[in-house]
Amino acid sequence: MIKGSILIGGQDRVGSSFFQAVDPATGEQIEPPFASAGAAEVEQACALAEAAFESFSATTPEARAAFLDAVADRIAALKDDLVARAMRESGLPKPRLEGEVGRTVGQLRLFAGVVRQGDWLDATIDPAMPDRQPLPRVDLRRANVALGPVAVFGASNFPLAFSVAGGDTASAFAAGCPVVVKGHPAHPGTGELVARAVSEAVAACGLHEGVFSYLPGPSIELGGALVADPRIKAVGFTGSRGGGLALLKIASERAEPIPVYAEMSSINPVILLPAALEARGDSIATGFVQSLTMGAGQFCTNPGLLIAIDSPALDRFAEAAGAALTASAPVTMLTPGIHSSFEQGVAALESHKAVKVVARGCVGDGVNQARGALFETDAASFLADPVLGHEVFGSSSVLIRCQTVAEIKQVIAGLEGQLTATLMMDEADHAMAAELVMPLAAKAGRVLANGWPTGVEVSHAMVHGGPYPATSDGRTTSVGSLAIARFLRPVCFQNLPDALLPAALRSDNPWQVARRVDGVVARG
Amino acid sequence: MIKGSILIGGQDRVGSSFFQAVDPATGEQIEPPFASAGAAEVEQACALAEAAFESFSATTPEARAAFLDAVADRIAALKDDLVARAMRESGLPKPRLEGEVGRTVGQLRLFAGVVRQGDWLDATIDPAMPDRQPLPRVDLRRANVALGPVAVFGASNFPLAFSVAGGDTASAFAAGCPVVVKGHPAHPGTGELVARAVSEAVAACGLHEGVFSYLPGPSIELGGALVADPRIKAVGFTGSRGGGLALLKIASERAEPIPVYAEMSSINPVILLPAALEARGDSIATGFVQSLTMGAGQFCTNPGLLIAIDSPALDRFAEAAGAALTASAPVTMLTPGIHSSFEQGVAALESHKAVKVVARGCVGDGVNQARGALFETDAASFLADPVLGHEVFGSSSVLIRCQTVAEIKQVIAGLEGQLTATLMMDEADHAMAAELVMPLAAKAGRVLANGWPTGVEVSHAMVHGGPYPATSDGRTTSVGSLAIARFLRPVCFQNLPDALLPAALRSDNPWQVARRVDGVVARG
Repeated sequence: MIKGSILIGGQDRVGSSFFQAVDPATGEQIEPPFASAGAAEVEQACALAEAAFESFSATTPEARAAFLDAVADRIAALKDDLVARAMRESGLPKPRLEGEVGRTVGQLRLFAGVVRQGDWLDATIDPAMPDRQPLPRVDLRRANVALGPVAVFGASNFPLAFSVAGGDTASAFAAGCPVVVKGHPAHPGTGELVARAVSEAVAACGLHEGVFSYLPGPSIELGGALVADPRIKAVGFTGSRGGGLALLKIASERAEPIPVYAEMSSINPVILLPAALEARGDSIATGFVQSLTMGAGQFCTNPGLLIAIDSPALDRFAEAAGAALTASAPVTMLTPGIHSSFEQGVAALESHKAVKVVARGCVGDGVNQARGALFETDAASFLADPVLGHEVFGSSSVLIRCQTVAEIKQVIAGLEGQLTATLMMDEADHAMAAELVMPLAAKAGRVLANGWPTGVEVSHAMVHGGPYPATSDGRTTSVGSLAIARFLRPVCFQNLPDALLPAALRSDNPWQVARRVDGVVARG
Repeated sequence: MIKGSILIGGQDRVGSSFFQAVDPATGEQIEPPFASAGAAEVEQACALAEAAFESFSATTPEARAAFLDAVADRIAALKDDLVARAMRESGLPKPRLEGEVGRTVGQLRLFAGVVRQGDWLDATIDPAMPDRQPLPRVDLRRANVALGPVAVFGASNFPLAFSVAGGDTASAFAAGCPVVVKGHPAHPGTGELVARAVSEAVAACGLHEGVFSYLPGPSIELGGALVADPRIKAVGFTGSRGGGLALLKIASERAEPIPVYAEMSSINPVILLPAALEARGDSIATGFVQSLTMGAGQFCTNPGLLIAIDSPALDRFAEAAGAALTASAPVTMLTPGIHSSFEQGVAALESHKAVKVVARGCVGDGVNQARGALFETDAASFLADPVLGHEVFGSSSVLIRCQTVAEIKQVIAGLEGQLTATLMMDEADHAMAAELVMPLAAKAGRVLANGWPTGVEVSHAMVHGGPYPATSDGRTTSVGSLAIARFLRPVCFQNLPDALLPAALRSDNPWQVARRVDGVVARG
């Protein structure tokens, strides 16, 4: 089933140049070779996506939800093949990838439910008031409509849940947007299996073939050409800060700039409050090292920063965390490039004059092995050098010793935007925590108490977002049902005859969606 | 009451340089001189706004709504003074400005109601599921929070409703954001009267004085410094495309880029369908010229483009519109700069080889008089030269003669983003209109039938927005209750003790707001 093809509107295409996946555990290439998409394929995929837009965005909630379910069914059926291929391409362990298939299927079904339920339309009606004085009011009806074709860039660290049919694709489809995926070159086999599943679902549901295309390839130019194409109206991206900023620049320099939802960079501060440290520093240390080293630390929400007030309890915590980390096994990283960046980041911290090494994990045998790292510094040094606040993607974390709560607040105020911020606290810490919650909320998309930020629930209340540079648009989330809002815009219809209105706004409410009438929501 | 001051946190400041308003009807300067704010005042206003943010954003809905009402009360009480001063500064007639006071007061009260009602919080709770298999679910609660201090740029064409306490300021306050206004130099007296009213309301409501500052001044650098200030987290702007793009560039080049909501440019296409033209071309022509010339055409929603299929009925329409325009009186424009840009834009169309002059309005006596203009061209010429699709701010419109519906569709597809798009149609036109509604919705924030786009209702269903370059962010509106969403972002709180949660998310729901629990909305 893996042919090494480009898939445009469900049709196999072969390019003129090829690339291969690399097994990160061995450094060896994996068969088969994959065609690299180029400018011609971008042109074809975008032309088809534009042609598909009007009909796909006009599908009923039921038809669109059925399509999402059909994609989910096909991915669920492919589970064993997907896990086997993804293990080789990513080095990730089997249980993790099995879980990721479940999450991918689950979020497609979540969005199917969201689409059926209809609140995403935000249908709003201000009925005409012909007798109003001094001027009559016209009939005004507003609903959300799809933005247009969306470009999705898969992430290396979630070859299923944030790749070809991951959260960005699922939420764009849910909004009624055709999707052109730029396939991640680290997992092209996994990508192609999923792309075929999506293409089959498009055909089985009788949708326009341009609803989905898949453009694999290793070149930066491919992604740039896709974002620059005038038919693309929004971009979903998960990856590095450099990659995200490059796409943002291209998008902002278009004749028509478009929104880019780039999830880029976060060090996820964890504040260890005194009573919690005193009461249970050891178990916090164990939990921390588990969160830090899980999956070689290759999570956007990895705890890369610890902040605490200096104390004997903090010394004991550092000792316990250091001991746990020293005993931690090395883990294969996703790609040679990620491993090399990790090594560079860790080396820079190791040689930084204001930074002390608390502990390193075990040295690995093979290639691309992540060796965990815990450093420490003081608040003044952290505030003085922005480099100490930059993400080192992988199992690396820095402990900042502060002297006072005021200094903790200064450190928080000096942070860039984050995906998450965490408070480890006991009852006796609540007064101190109360001063920190809203300052942390000003910096992060999610504020946690007594948990680790890794592990992102896919649900209605989740926010996987946060101010720049955690994401390029802190008003959004890329995980959870609210992610659909990224691909919608409101349109008001004034005095249109019922038959010409979008279905959600017709007087008989054929989709039975909730509608806000004169400011008050009524269920359908 | 007009002292020519800068107002920072309610305190009068005097600058080192001064400017004066100009009466556009006479070209003469109006007393008194006004202080020009500069970099020092930007620094002070932003520092105060940042200091005010935490307490203001944490106010209860009732306290924030009471503040909005207090601003409204004070503006209503100033009505006569405001109208008298604004008439001199803008050249706009008394009834229009009286209406604008009403609109300004009305939209402040609308947002007070929106804040009290609480749906803007989008409070969402996914309760913990400790027994869920294979993994438990944590307690997740999401609500919107304010973005931070907002910079607002007043518009020249709405010296009240889109200036110091206009729609941008009202919606930013409603969201819980302190506001720093860059006062428009065309109406500094009107601006100061309103700024004093806002400052009084801040003090009367016991809010932090940094909730509002007012920085008048004619310099472009003033606005640039304000947008560049790292404490400003969003920008509201209504004005020219050049001005909006300059602010966008500054905002995107900051260390932390921020959203800019710029409402910039629109020619508001009106499609005249055949049956309507045949049945009532004369009355459409009369209505068109009224909409075109009202307020010297200085509305963002002015009908600057007519599109129709060539026919004898269209000839009759053009003749009737030409006759009405020829008889139309000249109108004083807002500023010498706007008048000069209008003259240049009209001259460029008059001398364009593919453009024919249908009619011009009467020549005026005094200075800054707008003389209406109606031009015509064919679809091929329009599509060939983007300049023909650029806004000429004022009473200028271009009629495009098409040969077929397909050509109308081509013209629509070639349009830039618009605030509005209108269909003039009768029953017999519905089949044709049905093909055009969604293509128009893809280009515009509001789609109208059988009305003129001038006249924007301030309500829940209104969208005064649209794809670039109508606005810089087509996912939003600057008029109507949805405008509050521009200044909010979602934050998820995970496993926080009840006492540390924002009030809207506490278990006892103290604000009694609607909340989505496990995906289903329950009223408070």
